[in-house]
Amino acid sequence: MTGPRYTALAQTLPATVPFVGPEAQERAQGEGFRARLGANENIFGPSPRAIAALKGASDGIWMYGDPESHDLRQALASHHGIAPPNLVVGEGIDGLLCYLVRLVVEQGDAVVTSEGAYPTFNYHVAGFGGVLHKVPYTDDHEDLPALIARAAEVDAKLVYFANPDNPMGTWVSGDSIKAALDALPDGTLLVLDEAYVEFAPEGTAPDLDIEDPRVIRMRTFSKAYGMAGARVGYAMGATDLIRNFEKIRNHFGMNRAAQAAALEALNDQAWLDTTCRNVAESRETIARIATDNGLSALPSATNFVAIDCGRDGAYAKAVLDGLVARGVFVRMPFVAPQNRCIRVSCGRPEDLAILAQELPKVLAELG
Amino acid sequence: MTGPRYTALAQTLPATVPFVGPEAQERAQGEGFRARLGANENIFGPSPRAIAALKGASDGIWMYGDPESHDLRQALASHHGIAPPNLVVGEGIDGLLCYLVRLVVEQGDAVVTSEGAYPTFNYHVAGFGGVLHKVPYTDDHEDLPALIARAAEVDAKLVYFANPDNPMGTWVSGDSIKAALDALPDGTLLVLDEAYVEFAPEGTAPDLDIEDPRVIRMRTFSKAYGMAGARVGYAMGATDLIRNFEKIRNHFGMNRAAQAAALEALNDQAWLDTTCRNVAESRETIARIATDNGLSALPSATNFVAIDCGRDGAYAKAVLDGLVARGVFVRMPFVAPQNRCIRVSCGRPEDLAILAQELPKVLAELG
Repeated sequence: MTGPRYTALAQTLPATVPFVGPEAQERAQGEGFRARLGANENIFGPSPRAIAALKGASDGIWMYGDPESHDLRQALASHHGIAPPNLVVGEGIDGLLCYLVRLVVEQGDAVVTSEGAYPTFNYHVAGFGGVLHKVPYTDDHEDLPALIARAAEVDAKLVYFANPDNPMGTWVSGDSIKAALDALPDGTLLVLDEAYVEFAPEGTAPDLDIEDPRVIRMRTFSKAYGMAGARVGYAMGATDLIRNFEKIRNHFGMNRAAQAAALEALNDQAWLDTTCRNVAESRETIARIATDNGLSALPSATNFVAIDCGRDGAYAKAVLDGLVARGVFVRMPFVAPQNRCIRVSCGRPEDLAILAQELPKVLAELG
Repeated sequence: MTGPRYTALAQTLPATVPFVGPEAQERAQGEGFRARLGANENIFGPSPRAIAALKGASDGIWMYGDPESHDLRQALASHHGIAPPNLVVGEGIDGLLCYLVRLVVEQGDAVVTSEGAYPTFNYHVAGFGGVLHKVPYTDDHEDLPALIARAAEVDAKLVYFANPDNPMGTWVSGDSIKAALDALPDGTLLVLDEAYVEFAPEGTAPDLDIEDPRVIRMRTFSKAYGMAGARVGYAMGATDLIRNFEKIRNHFGMNRAAQAAALEALNDQAWLDTTCRNVAESRETIARIATDNGLSALPSATNFVAIDCGRDGAYAKAVLDGLVARGVFVRMPFVAPQNRCIRVSCGRPEDLAILAQELPKVLAELG
């Protein structure tokens, strides 16, 4: 009596999770975090109209969501000045990255990303047997020309590039992305992860022809729209590329209330503007807390700030551990030299007051 | 400037959807359905406690869900008398079937199911390049001994068996499943889809050792618990099998409000009992409507009833089309001879009154 026969690939994969959730840390510590500033969630929350939509959809939760996400796709297409066939809605960017990798990556295929960039993308690439080639950051920025040059060397099927970047918060201009595309090898798809782009300065999102077959753009309601727990993301690209998702996606995978809430969130752009102002203020406060403690903050176009702790990764990790032990949930970059930093998500004044209170104690303890 | 290089498999897949949603039909018809009785949704809805949990979680939707679904898994494990490592929560049974197929099925691998059984399972098998072998129903029942015999012939990695069955609503005893397992070939995993089992008579779910490596069981909050739009399912099985899901699942794929609501739904077993009584009454009403119109209803252990229209598939399709045109959303089996039936989901008296009103008109038109 034996168990199932797993695929050769599945047998080689580790049981792993790209991130440990804060709830698991709270269970381990036996108490809740006082400030939840680690997962780049948007504590300012979604539009009240989106919350009302969630509540309004509760009584109808017995119904499956529309597998076409028709109304949301129509609204998103209109918002972006594209057509609905240029757009697929999915279970967050994480879910869409999984589908994309599955469509494109066969075992042994090369994929290029930055050393220390989004681990969930790497998880999906490994999960389909892709071979990751990693390019270092340049001055704390993901380096698109270097990524593209590496893609040409290794004949990559995908190049991942987040703009703005996570975990550093840095960004490049949309025009520089557009210019870099000239060097993209034929048959290499640029995965442009724009999860944080609503927080970024005008001109950060490149002005591209939506039918350009070289790029797919990933967007989300988890960050600026404040609905991480709802799991709504979308990908934009050429019609033929988007149509391919219909071959494999979980058509009935969307939460019905989340679809309704995303539509309302999109329709409340005034709330988005308010959120972005709140986030900008919060970034300044985090930077001030850093400098008040003799540390420095990196400029950020996101809803988080990388604080340079000024020494090595072990020291930053000690700062992080100290904060976590004191009830402040934060995370940090995985690899050197970015791991000299801790990463603090934006929060309300009362959340950042706790950070301001605890950080000097942690630093004093460490000496 | 070319597009992405899709996998060889992706290039062969059709862009398809296992089911067209009722919303798409409503858009095509230009008006809403008067009775939504086609998708085996549970119109009696979830526990009021679950709805309260959805609303209560709305303000916290800015937070990601717990990637471990810890509290829900603890409660489910306790409910089933198993340990949390025997249980994985996922984005509905559809999402879990996708993960399972991905773990086990390589291109060319054999998989066995019934001719006319759940198409979404087939969609996932095809999506990973598996080769489907289909066994006919026997007397409108999925035939487990025949499925297992075929599995032995073709060296299948998976055998899919739904008990109760969809779309016919038939069922077999848990003891007969247990007995059939003796013939299951080594290295073949039985996928026991128990989506509707809460509606079924005592003894329909087999009493199996949870560490038996030959079986994985799929359960859902979409049917008896009335939360199809929330997307919460779970799989139960041997620790080692369940651990394999950690290699590939979308750890942050669960909607946070849905996790909270599922926990409350589980904790309100009195509501579940009431739902099952409502559904049983509704089945009787549907059967009476059928016989009042000279048709016959199949016995059902689910929240739907297959009505035998007494002629061939073309006739049943005409009955279905007539109902749909009159605002009654129903579906029907895909293959002969089951496609002599239409499938009507249980509804409230007011929903079934519309069916009772429209069915005779449709039959009169068809003559």
